[in-house]
Amino acid sequence: MSGLLPNSSVSVPTAPAPLRIGLIGFGCVGQGLYDILRRLPEFGAEVRRIAVKNPAKARPLPADQFTYHADELLADPELDVLVEVIDDAAEAFRLVSSALRQGRRVVTANKAMVAQHLPELVALQQHHGGTLLYEAAVCGSIPVIRTLDAYFGQEPLRSVSGIFNGSSNYVLTRMGSEGSDYAPALAEAQAKGFAETDPTLDMAAFDPRSKAVILAAHAYGVLLSPEQVLNLGIENVSATDIAYAGLEGQKVKVVAGLYLLPDGQLTVLVTPQFVGPASPLYAVDDEFNGVIIEAEFAGTQFLRGRGAGGHSTGSAVLADLAALRGDFRYAYAKLNAQPLTYTTDLELEIYIRTDNELLLDQLGFTDITEEADEDGYIVGYVPLCALLQYRDALRKAGAFVARTGNVRPATAHSDESQVLEAVSC
Amino acid sequence: MSGLLPNSSVSVPTAPAPLRIGLIGFGCVGQGLYDILRRLPEFGAEVRRIAVKNPAKARPLPADQFTYHADELLADPELDVLVEVIDDAAEAFRLVSSALRQGRRVVTANKAMVAQHLPELVALQQHHGGTLLYEAAVCGSIPVIRTLDAYFGQEPLRSVSGIFNGSSNYVLTRMGSEGSDYAPALAEAQAKGFAETDPTLDMAAFDPRSKAVILAAHAYGVLLSPEQVLNLGIENVSATDIAYAGLEGQKVKVVAGLYLLPDGQLTVLVTPQFVGPASPLYAVDDEFNGVIIEAEFAGTQFLRGRGAGGHSTGSAVLADLAALRGDFRYAYAKLNAQPLTYTTDLELEIYIRTDNELLLDQLGFTDITEEADEDGYIVGYVPLCALLQYRDALRKAGAFVARTGNVRPATAHSDESQVLEAVSC
Repeated sequence: MSGLLPNSSVSVPTAPAPLRIGLIGFGCVGQGLYDILRRLPEFGAEVRRIAVKNPAKARPLPADQFTYHADELLADPELDVLVEVIDDAAEAFRLVSSALRQGRRVVTANKAMVAQHLPELVALQQHHGGTLLYEAAVCGSIPVIRTLDAYFGQEPLRSVSGIFNGSSNYVLTRMGSEGSDYAPALAEAQAKGFAETDPTLDMAAFDPRSKAVILAAHAYGVLLSPEQVLNLGIENVSATDIAYAGLEGQKVKVVAGLYLLPDGQLTVLVTPQFVGPASPLYAVDDEFNGVIIEAEFAGTQFLRGRGAGGHSTGSAVLADLAALRGDFRYAYAKLNAQPLTYTTDLELEIYIRTDNELLLDQLGFTDITEEADEDGYIVGYVPLCALLQYRDALRKAGAFVARTGNVRPATAHSDESQVLEAVSC
Repeated sequence: MSGLLPNSSVSVPTAPAPLRIGLIGFGCVGQGLYDILRRLPEFGAEVRRIAVKNPAKARPLPADQFTYHADELLADPELDVLVEVIDDAAEAFRLVSSALRQGRRVVTANKAMVAQHLPELVALQQHHGGTLLYEAAVCGSIPVIRTLDAYFGQEPLRSVSGIFNGSSNYVLTRMGSEGSDYAPALAEAQAKGFAETDPTLDMAAFDPRSKAVILAAHAYGVLLSPEQVLNLGIENVSATDIAYAGLEGQKVKVVAGLYLLPDGQLTVLVTPQFVGPASPLYAVDDEFNGVIIEAEFAGTQFLRGRGAGGHSTGSAVLADLAALRGDFRYAYAKLNAQPLTYTTDLELEIYIRTDNELLLDQLGFTDITEEADEDGYIVGYVPLCALLQYRDALRKAGAFVARTGNVRPATAHSDESQVLEAVSC
């Protein structure tokens, strides 16, 4: 091999100055990151200060390593980066927005906070010159945000869909493969550290909805309020529903979908869905997450990786720290393009199991595909708007709803028009 | 939603100056890129000049759009970026290295060229300040180089493996699912534009070897000469071999593997392998490529996407153009780290079908697992070094070799020591 140089003759830049980190939060992700940085001294990052909330809580490090006032970290000019990994979205926004107002560099894993405040967070970066990265907020270890933001930043996308919540996927996998009941499967997910502190966020699909809202900004340049997006979860799932899916060789998965419709509008929803073996999501089990990207030119891409856990989520924070050192920022390229409009004016084919006749009436079925009185389920088309309007009633009534995957434009409404007009979506 | 701003109030930077592109080569990838840019006027890139080699060849654009002297593009200071997508690796290196010596920004899809000259290409970027990106050179539309370089730049990786050649995968899929013979399946792949001009590059696994060499630099910081890496292909595959795999519910796939061994050394090889349904590669069919990344902290990642075709490879060039506009460069972070050593001192369990007894003797089996005289195959352990030494003899003798996936340290050599000492690996 003429011209092959040994490693040593390729000079690479000398190691940069150590990165001094202020870590806010020391739960699963914070401890995961701390451990990773300890095991990678050559990266040259040092957790200089750690802020936590509760002085009484037992922790794996000596008490003198902690402060109980996160604002002290904000006031410390010696810290190069703030890493925010706390649960409380309101407090997280207070801290992160305050740091960005100082023009600082911040990494967060808080999907609820980012989803609720993305427009302000983008504006704060623009006005004050700071940088916010949040790869760990969506799909744990999968580099989905930077792939959508940078790699697919110029390319029109037909859809982005996937399993964005490791905890509910773990529960469904246990129920499907071992016939576990819901409650013990959830307890197992919590014991393994896959679940949010409040299980409702995972199980009622608030968590994957936040992630879908974040991806809508990067993949489509559409800034949504989480409340605009339907989220239905698995709190009411039963063996009947799993068995129904199994009859067709399918599994129940909570699928978040961002779909560019034939009319050029975007719709986003997060619900249980029946998924067959032809879909790459079928094989995404346990706490894994998977994302399918259908791109105009690249074709179909699929990414799978761990969606939960301290080390895998900590790994995404590590990647963000390295990116900050290289002055990487999200381009938000599609926010600059001709804006897409968001719509919920379409009909979904759903499976619903409930004995609440009133609710079934209220949903305004436009077509019934299948009805099984003995098992108490109906399959048919309903307006997405009606599901949004009655989401809380469905949860409260113990109803379980799953998409079949079939979608169609809203039909000409006749009798259902009253229902639809009452919906502000 | 307090604080939700409509899209319009988030100001984003105004569109950058148009990117003036000099395109060298107008085959499948060049035409794919040209079409993509034509369909994305909002990206603001303009193919200002196109250089091709053969004035006599019929082309889809008027002749006055072409020059036949690529050096004119190198000499044109009005071009912001040169995109090199020609077949000829030697000429590609001459052009790309010359452009980098001028400190220019260059995108290439030429995997053979990059693999042969990576150390010089890294050094030229360092010394002259230019930038070279080559995402399209590995796995078509899958963003594997930037994922390894940037996202996993700090994280130790246990292995990177996958299907890196769409053309041979297409042939194997046709043979497996439809019982096609090798020759018509190859002709079909060529007709669809998935194959290199010289089919040997794809079918004898020279092409995926180049890709493995490129990934070794980004994933492990190890600069290899392609000749150091075993490549065995599918030119001699037969229905017998496909059927053997099928008996165990497996498929034959050409798998490139970069493995960190328990002793901390790296080995790299590209050969057919029997792959069962538990592997995500099992479902990677047709011209698709797939990559499995086993990372220390993130766990196992899997990426799948189109590995060939003008639009999907053009999409990767588009992403590189957008990255250049954002001043992205590969960090080559692991070239800076403590270098790993490369080894071929291990044994692989292989399936080999040949009637050449001398060759079987020369390979120096250290263990025979299975032997079927009637079908003419043997399964057993051989030194990797012996496969490297006898690679050309195996091809010439019509032998088909596939890995089972089992690997072990080199055994204490007794009789085989002569064989091993004769191998310069």
